[in-house]
Amino acid sequence: MSKKVVVIYSGGMDSFTVLHKAMQQGLTPYALTFDYGQRHIKEIEVAREVCEELGVHHKVIDISAINQLIGGSSLTDSSIDVAQGHYQQESMKSTVVPNRNMILLSLAIGYAVSLGAEQVYYGAHSGDHEIYPDCRPIFVEKMNDVAAVANYEKVEIFSPYLNNNKSGILKDGLAMGLDYSKTWTCYNGREKACGKCGSCVERLEAFAANGLKDPIAYEDT
Amino acid sequence: MSKKVVVIYSGGMDSFTVLHKAMQQGLTPYALTFDYGQRHIKEIEVAREVCEELGVHHKVIDISAINQLIGGSSLTDSSIDVAQGHYQQESMKSTVVPNRNMILLSLAIGYAVSLGAEQVYYGAHSGDHEIYPDCRPIFVEKMNDVAAVANYEKVEIFSPYLNNNKSGILKDGLAMGLDYSKTWTCYNGREKACGKCGSCVERLEAFAANGLKDPIAYEDT
Repeated sequence: MSKKVVVIYSGGMDSFTVLHKAMQQGLTPYALTFDYGQRHIKEIEVAREVCEELGVHHKVIDISAINQLIGGSSLTDSSIDVAQGHYQQESMKSTVVPNRNMILLSLAIGYAVSLGAEQVYYGAHSGDHEIYPDCRPIFVEKMNDVAAVANYEKVEIFSPYLNNNKSGILKDGLAMGLDYSKTWTCYNGREKACGKCGSCVERLEAFAANGLKDPIAYEDT
Repeated sequence: MSKKVVVIYSGGMDSFTVLHKAMQQGLTPYALTFDYGQRHIKEIEVAREVCEELGVHHKVIDISAINQLIGGSSLTDSSIDVAQGHYQQESMKSTVVPNRNMILLSLAIGYAVSLGAEQVYYGAHSGDHEIYPDCRPIFVEKMNDVAAVANYEKVEIFSPYLNNNKSGILKDGLAMGLDYSKTWTCYNGREKACGKCGSCVERLEAFAANGLKDPIAYEDT
């Protein structure tokens, strides 16, 4: 039997690529999706469909109770407008969820210990470093230090794209032959992607950098 | 206004002492109780009463959804018997919840960031070191390293009793004039404490070491 690995899988293009990466490495992925009270559930639906198609074990965990603790981000609080434009702008800081990745990774590590998996795959990438402190290499390094001593079983966090940006991830995924129509990135959970939020802008830039047209449908196009 | 501090407060005697310690230091505690699907809610009720009496801000967060990820401990799974006897026995390992403290601390850190608190108080102590990897000083040290880089705001985890055992905590609490009838320790949530589970045994030893009788009622006494 191949080695088990927990993959934090949101339904977005980064973690979609990470999930396939784990499979191509001959690992048995246990996909883990967090429903932490996002504005929309479209991303989660896409994640479900993909896992079903791939025959990948999938858990969706509702952790929306934690919004009582860490409110105040535009991604979880519908009273705050989702910022438009590029990630590097100051306004994108409103999308920062306090301590988000430490919380998600600590849950994923607990899941790994329960399963007997030695690794957690997670799609941090360099495009997020500036705006999200918990996507930086130093954060992953320090998380690994604590994950090594927190349980009887040592768990390693592996971020295959830590030093790539989104277009680098896409390039790798395209080389793997992946179909990105099966991913959802937009912060606004309408029928089509908005093309304007930070997440859409970054996605569109990644496709442009690879000389390709994004296969998903956008509003006003 | 005095400094805010998040106190992880279960309703047990260790965190009860930590809560009072923070107050005596002139801090404004925000008590945080996790309902992670314990077998009983007696401990949580006691926590509520104490905070109400003290006029301390108190949040109880239901994180029982995470048991879908980290099942298999006797403290959260009613199909597993609670081990009796002393903590140091091998059987007490059945009370280990995978990655428990990393999960709870990461949530508390997120709460601290939201509140603008710079510290999380947490009642790890040396009596737990042998059986719980995530109660050891090395764990707290590594958690502090990651808590320093995970957010724009640095948060410190402070464990005032990291190098004390339970009787040392009790000694300090008694010196503060605390009334331990307002704490609940037993793993079995019946009307009176069982006096037999690892938690009761350790508590009774702490009172004996301080030459005192525990003020709470026990079964068969």
